[in-house]
Amino acid sequence: MSKLPNISTSIFTVMSKMATEHNAINLSQGFPNFPVNERLTDIVAKLAKENVHQYLPMSGYPPLLSKIATLVDDSYGRIIQAETEILVTAGATQGIFTTILTLVKTNDEVIILDPSYDCYEAPVLLCNANPVRVALNDDYTPNWATIEKVCSSKTKMIIINNPHNPTGKILTKSDFEALEILLEKYPDILLLSDEVYEYITFEEKHISAHTREKLLHRCVIVSSFGKSFHVTGWKVGYLVAPENLMKEIKKVHQFLVFSVNSICQVAISDYLDLVSVDEIGKLYQEKRDYFRQLLKESRFELMPCEGTYFQVASYAAISNENDVDFCKRLIIEHGVAAIPISTFYADGKDLKLIRFCFAKDNTTLEEATKRLCAI
Amino acid sequence: MSKLPNISTSIFTVMSKMATEHNAINLSQGFPNFPVNERLTDIVAKLAKENVHQYLPMSGYPPLLSKIATLVDDSYGRIIQAETEILVTAGATQGIFTTILTLVKTNDEVIILDPSYDCYEAPVLLCNANPVRVALNDDYTPNWATIEKVCSSKTKMIIINNPHNPTGKILTKSDFEALEILLEKYPDILLLSDEVYEYITFEEKHISAHTREKLLHRCVIVSSFGKSFHVTGWKVGYLVAPENLMKEIKKVHQFLVFSVNSICQVAISDYLDLVSVDEIGKLYQEKRDYFRQLLKESRFELMPCEGTYFQVASYAAISNENDVDFCKRLIIEHGVAAIPISTFYADGKDLKLIRFCFAKDNTTLEEATKRLCAI
Ligand SMILES: CSCCC(=O)C(=O)O
Ligand SMILES: CSCCC(=O)C(=O)O
Repeated sequence: MSKLPNISTSIFTVMSKMATEHNAINLSQGFPNFPVNERLTDIVAKLAKENVHQYLPMSGYPPLLSKIATLVDDSYGRIIQAETEILVTAGATQGIFTTILTLVKTNDEVIILDPSYDCYEAPVLLCNANPVRVALNDDYTPNWATIEKVCSSKTKMIIINNPHNPTGKILTKSDFEALEILLEKYPDILLLSDEVYEYITFEEKHISAHTREKLLHRCVIVSSFGKSFHVTGWKVGYLVAPENLMKEIKKVHQFLVFSVNSICQVAISDYLDLVSVDEIGKLYQEKRDYFRQLLKESRFELMPCEGTYFQVASYAAISNENDVDFCKRLIIEHGVAAIPISTFYADGKDLKLIRFCFAKDNTTLEEATKRLCAI
Repeated sequence: MSKLPNISTSIFTVMSKMATEHNAINLSQGFPNFPVNERLTDIVAKLAKENVHQYLPMSGYPPLLSKIATLVDDSYGRIIQAETEILVTAGATQGIFTTILTLVKTNDEVIILDPSYDCYEAPVLLCNANPVRVALNDDYTPNWATIEKVCSSKTKMIIINNPHNPTGKILTKSDFEALEILLEKYPDILLLSDEVYEYITFEEKHISAHTREKLLHRCVIVSSFGKSFHVTGWKVGYLVAPENLMKEIKKVHQFLVFSVNSICQVAISDYLDLVSVDEIGKLYQEKRDYFRQLLKESRFELMPCEGTYFQVASYAAISNENDVDFCKRLIIEHGVAAIPISTFYADGKDLKLIRFCFAKDNTTLEEATKRLCAI
């Protein structure tokens, strides 16, 4: 009788709850624990006393829509139309869900890479459509040849996530070239590009779908102010899509949520006049480097991390347990919460890998790594 | 190719936009224009500087869940379990959408009364299910005999809206008794009770589904802090449902939006310690009475208004135009925006009725009615 019989409470809820219960340092669910920029909280405090408490227009606060257009233009040299091509959503999750629900139909196939962040599959299933999982290569690059093999007239959409959660991998120019060649053969396949960590990249610059002219006419791009401005609880994200797709997405959006929190939309709009998104990558690069350095003496083996605020680590040298059991023991015995990577695989593949979130103040990173080094 | 070929931009967006363009007084879309209670905005200003900017738990801020349980208990003498039976949603709209998407399947039928608020039909269609519209009686009471006639093994859900938007009608004890007798014959039919205006009732007290023991095991109840506390832009509503239904709703919710704006959830939770919901009905009863008195000298005929902040009026004595054209002319020539009632009917039935929102400060009501009396 359930429409989602195989889906249970998300791993982020399970692990954060367990972390709280055991008073562990929570490096599981992805969210920063350092104070939000004072200029942003000052804006909120000021706005609280202004007339910003009623519905904003369904697509978003008009000045915010214009500033998103400018932000995309400044970041990627792309001109988009604020009124017809942008939609503010109640977090990236709602943007992703709404896009899939709007565009995917019964019996369609949607290609989802494996491992993947956990929010893509449920909306596909709720459309009575079929998720088709395609394994990433061992180095977490997409295997475009395998992806092409599963493409057919049934394929409605390919979902990419760049930078990739949980692996921190970013797509290269040749990835995009391969994708473009593939998609040329399938004019009807849509692309959903989840770029919520777009500004959190390090040595290599992130290549956004915004810069790939050949993709734009069929591409919905998702981003998140929660991630970029360290306010995950605000639930303000946005979609960018060509007008013909966006028109349909807005139809669903207006009945799914109608509009998004007013105060936070206005606050972000005002804040965008004061900040540059360039600072974001620098902040997290320092965090990543510090976290990795602090773990040098541990028995964890650290995987590469090109973007996102997540560090994947192998505990193979420490234990033979499966990763879910290891994470539970890590909380209970060592006071640190992480996410087992198996939960990102459709088949629960266990590679003895876990994911740490390093979006934490230095004191937290120091205490957590002290505990991890003692194992 | 559209999944919602017959749905266009909602009438509230159309009318609010037109009101802005023509600088008209906006009595169309339902939202208050008076200042939010200072105690509530003080809380927000204070919270801005605290650590309330990251994800709250998926079901809602735990103290808020407890306070909702207490609120329901105080209002209706009903004990509910905060952790398993309540879900905070990004506005009532998201609660309604999520409930329907979770519980309704392909080819199911969902009974929607006619006229109806406009957000019930789209989620039913997106489930590949069939909305079955049943006309209300001429006095806007439900015709339970006609409703029973369309009930069958295909019927998955009946949606009621009490107090009713746009007509302001509330259900009586005998309505509930008739519904209970009907539903006893159909053990599998679920009830979705949209009670977002539950605290905005006047001479007659609102009877909530919370008080109907025979319904509770199959009933999802929707409410809205946006309506109750005059903060429609905050997008904080909630669902109450028995654990077996709520478990499924939460599965969808966690991938549809994951969680709801943190600052506003905490603010409402803190505010619930300071206020009584009893004040809400009184405030709006005064507004309703004042608005009706101000319109006494006009050529509009006022329909009864038992609840909600909407007043339906006939313009039959003024014009023969259809109600959409009349509303457009009202904006352009007379500077007042209203909602044409035909848009709440599946077949666009035009009874020369329009809906005014009287959730406005007295100056606005005075200026608007001055204009309306001059017609
Ligand atoms: C929406 S809760 C999960 C947050 C997140 O993006 C992650 O931890 O991967
Ligand atoms: C979600 S916009 C519409 C507001 C409302 O409830 C109404 O005007 O009926």
